[in-house]
Amino acid sequence: MNTLDFGKAAGRAIRGVLPVLDWGRSYSKAQFTGDLTAAVIVTIMLIPQSLAYALLAGLPAEVGLYASILPLVAYGSFGTSRSLAVGPVAVVSLMTASALAPLGLDTTTEYVAAAGLLALLSGLFLLAMGVLRLGFIANFLSHPVIAGFITASGILIAISQLKHILGVDAHGHALPELIGSIGAKLGQINYPTLIIGVLALAFLFWVRNGMARFLRNRMGMDAGRAATLARVGPVFAVIGTTLVAWIANLPGQGVSVVGEVPTGLPPLGLPTFGLDLIQALAGPAVLISIIGYVESVSVAQTLASKRKQRIDPNQELIALGASNISSAVSGGYPVTGGFARSVVNFDAGAETPAAGAFTAVGLLFAAMFLTPLLYFLPKATLAATIIVAVLSLVDFSILTRAWSYSKADFSAVFATIVLTLGFGVEVGVASGVAISLLLFLWKTSRPHVAEVGLVPGSQHFRNIYRHRVKTDPTILTLRIDENLYFANARRMEDLILARVHRSREDIRHVVLMCSAVNEIDLSALESLEAINERLHDMGVTLHLSEVKGPVMDRLQTSHFIDGMTGQVFLSQYDAWTSLTSSKAA
Amino acid sequence: MNTLDFGKAAGRAIRGVLPVLDWGRSYSKAQFTGDLTAAVIVTIMLIPQSLAYALLAGLPAEVGLYASILPLVAYGSFGTSRSLAVGPVAVVSLMTASALAPLGLDTTTEYVAAAGLLALLSGLFLLAMGVLRLGFIANFLSHPVIAGFITASGILIAISQLKHILGVDAHGHALPELIGSIGAKLGQINYPTLIIGVLALAFLFWVRNGMARFLRNRMGMDAGRAATLARVGPVFAVIGTTLVAWIANLPGQGVSVVGEVPTGLPPLGLPTFGLDLIQALAGPAVLISIIGYVESVSVAQTLASKRKQRIDPNQELIALGASNISSAVSGGYPVTGGFARSVVNFDAGAETPAAGAFTAVGLLFAAMFLTPLLYFLPKATLAATIIVAVLSLVDFSILTRAWSYSKADFSAVFATIVLTLGFGVEVGVASGVAISLLLFLWKTSRPHVAEVGLVPGSQHFRNIYRHRVKTDPTILTLRIDENLYFANARRMEDLILARVHRSREDIRHVVLMCSAVNEIDLSALESLEAINERLHDMGVTLHLSEVKGPVMDRLQTSHFIDGMTGQVFLSQYDAWTSLTSSKAA
Repeated sequence: MNTLDFGKAAGRAIRGVLPVLDWGRSYSKAQFTGDLTAAVIVTIMLIPQSLAYALLAGLPAEVGLYASILPLVAYGSFGTSRSLAVGPVAVVSLMTASALAPLGLDTTTEYVAAAGLLALLSGLFLLAMGVLRLGFIANFLSHPVIAGFITASGILIAISQLKHILGVDAHGHALPELIGSIGAKLGQINYPTLIIGVLALAFLFWVRNGMARFLRNRMGMDAGRAATLARVGPVFAVIGTTLVAWIANLPGQGVSVVGEVPTGLPPLGLPTFGLDLIQALAGPAVLISIIGYVESVSVAQTLASKRKQRIDPNQELIALGASNISSAVSGGYPVTGGFARSVVNFDAGAETPAAGAFTAVGLLFAAMFLTPLLYFLPKATLAATIIVAVLSLVDFSILTRAWSYSKADFSAVFATIVLTLGFGVEVGVASGVAISLLLFLWKTSRPHVAEVGLVPGSQHFRNIYRHRVKTDPTILTLRIDENLYFANARRMEDLILARVHRSREDIRHVVLMCSAVNEIDLSALESLEAINERLHDMGVTLHLSEVKGPVMDRLQTSHFIDGMTGQVFLSQYDAWTSLTSSKAA
Repeated sequence: MNTLDFGKAAGRAIRGVLPVLDWGRSYSKAQFTGDLTAAVIVTIMLIPQSLAYALLAGLPAEVGLYASILPLVAYGSFGTSRSLAVGPVAVVSLMTASALAPLGLDTTTEYVAAAGLLALLSGLFLLAMGVLRLGFIANFLSHPVIAGFITASGILIAISQLKHILGVDAHGHALPELIGSIGAKLGQINYPTLIIGVLALAFLFWVRNGMARFLRNRMGMDAGRAATLARVGPVFAVIGTTLVAWIANLPGQGVSVVGEVPTGLPPLGLPTFGLDLIQALAGPAVLISIIGYVESVSVAQTLASKRKQRIDPNQELIALGASNISSAVSGGYPVTGGFARSVVNFDAGAETPAAGAFTAVGLLFAAMFLTPLLYFLPKATLAATIIVAVLSLVDFSILTRAWSYSKADFSAVFATIVLTLGFGVEVGVASGVAISLLLFLWKTSRPHVAEVGLVPGSQHFRNIYRHRVKTDPTILTLRIDENLYFANARRMEDLILARVHRSREDIRHVVLMCSAVNEIDLSALESLEAINERLHDMGVTLHLSEVKGPVMDRLQTSHFIDGMTGQVFLSQYDAWTSLTSSKAA
């Protein structure tokens, strides 16, 4: 390789890790306009959302803003999706609250530092997974488990926000505690808060479901502008309720407001931490990373496929890792790619990750100058924002789809929902993964075995109970519908021998059709040897057919083939012609 | 059903649970003679062995005798093997020691009670598994994991007994502690003990490897009698060293002897226990049950197949459960079917489980009258008995066999050995199971996909890279060599689309050959829908072939088949003829 080639290769490698170098070189004016428009809309939408999610995580409101600035820039530099917007999201905020609550921290400063540490650990873990190319680990979360988890989290989040709407104090990270603690306080409802909360909820539901249509049909606005206005709609609720709270001095009547929010740049620097805090947060950080990654990648993939772009799952790990680390060092908490903000970004015409950088500048401006305006913003308004946002996550249709398709999938999703609601997010998602894996193992441990015969007029063999097929009384052909491995080896041994016992007296040949056997491990090899020996004692010959290349390669390293009483046939039809003609001869 | 039929059915059911009613009715004189001879030999062999295993478990010597009496009778009544001998065995004794050590019990009485409770919990667990017919759970222990675990346990046991041979105090349940604690005491070796121990070891090795040949060749004894004498050989070591210790008053020189052993019937009654003891022992009891069950069933199956008898794995659970409960209520500790004692019983001519009952009577006699004779028996002799017995369990050949056959099996056995030696039996066996399951999941998550073509002169399709086959430039046929489920669904989606991209421009049809797909779960169904849609966008039609009955039944409950751009063909050859002829037309 000469120097020039080396330079080119190095350039390619660097652009792989820093995609910004790729799209940044051909950045055009049209792209700039698209990005800037999107950034303005997203900034307006993100201000109330970021504050609300910080409150959901149990953190001061400004932490939500901080977590929306640097992570956007970091993702823009490392990410492969052109539309993903990274920042605080509902499920990860709930998981953060759930991870920090058991620590029993006394001061807000400690709590904020622990949230930063959680982001740091999560970022390092994501980065390590990306460098080691372990993105596939997320595949072990099945779709039904993810769907059930998101639905249950949405319910938990909505109910956890009810306390802000009712103006009471409550706590808990699972349904029984939440409902119990809210129920106990029903006598202490603060009615001004309730009125603000219910009005904000009603307005926000209308914004989401009817505002765009209203603006188009009744106000004669064009569709694009109507949609844009509907998207920034929540800001009207924020402005309206803040004004009411200020004018009517609602804090004097017991209405909780955001209050003093520090003005200025996000605090830069590593969060402070001790070794036992790391130990306590390592487990939750791993869970948050994986859930956040799955959520982010699925959003990114959905958007990329709309524009026929591709994302690189392992590079996404690195980008999310960088985002979380940058959140940790700028006073933030765990972040990931969010659905709502990304879709808005995409729809508003973001062309490149530069849109994210512009949004970051907008939010930085808000953090530096606008926070005093938020003093009178009622927490009930923020809670209403969250409730309306997360109820769109709640979707029980996965239960009916899973029920009608597969009882195993249904069990996994049902258990995930019930355990998440009953015991919180960590128990819920861990059990969901464990249950879906155990169900898969359980199924593979009790395989289907079909006796097959020749479909007349073809060379194809099918189940004798499902198709009209030709069989031969001296030949028993069993198609084994599973990999042979330790969990089913003994069962298969018993099953095959039992079928031979049960069948007609005149069996001379048993053919195991291995078209569905992709793996034979050492335990299964020992069972095959035992089957061969037992059949030999009964005067029956054992044959194999349609053994796949990789399986055959491995069998040939053992002595099994040498000791086998019969042959290995390339196809089941070869076995049939050979065994039936040898009888005729 | 009339009364007579009902009576017969009830009789069959009772005989199923109490096999003794079956063989007991036709008990003959010849069987009686065989059983009695076997019982005498086994009793002589069992006395030193039972004492030794009790010491290995950290229990007083007489507990080993007690654990050998009632369990034999219980197994004889409920078990389906005609030769299995139940009692204390090496690996379960080691696991008992390892379960009781962390409890930090002060007195021997407490320790004995805890061991009894462990047997009770283990018995109840086995009984429950048997009643619920959960014997298949043992299948999740792969052969390599079991082999590795037994080998590592043998090494741990042998090294743990070195302290008795050296006459020093040492402790630990894993190699680092054991070696460290023995090493630290090397200056305190008791030489009379060492001499007794080494002589006993040498004699016992000779008994095992050379005595029968010596008696036949040099003493002209007939083969049967020589083998019998060799089997009871360890008793000579017991008698010899006891006499030496008595005559030379070795206890006065610091040689540990068995000492006072209470005379009389085993103490009947439930062990005393509290709730926290149950909590602490529940986990170890489950592990001991499963390991004991696997060991016992594999011994029983080996012996049954030699006499063309069959054992019933679920009934074995009930029998072992009853044995452990009866051990618990008669002053014993966890028991299971042992290899050495069963083989001796079998070889000595035991015909029915009555042999076990006769052995129980012999051991009861020993417990009532012979224990004072054991006062001067050196513990070094018992340790030597154990070492010689367990070294036959140590067999590293599984490592080379696994290495040459499959690296996954090798990893599982290697990890089991290393972790058992390094961290003890509980960590070792739990990790072994976890690792072998994770490796299986890992393999199924990255499936083999082969592009196939028609083998000329047949209707059979094989891998284009392994066979000379016919292909068509407009048709890409991929054989998917794995169940489609959540862990590989996304990967499969990427892989199939990448192959289509990579292939020739003129592809019009993709056929997924599903002969090896035994399961398509909901996550995989969603991936198939995505593949169908993406291919449709590229102007390519998706077909399936050779979809199995159970998989097709399920697909038909979904809307996938309706939305599919192509067809489902019964056989791959049908797909080939239909797609190639449609092109010609």
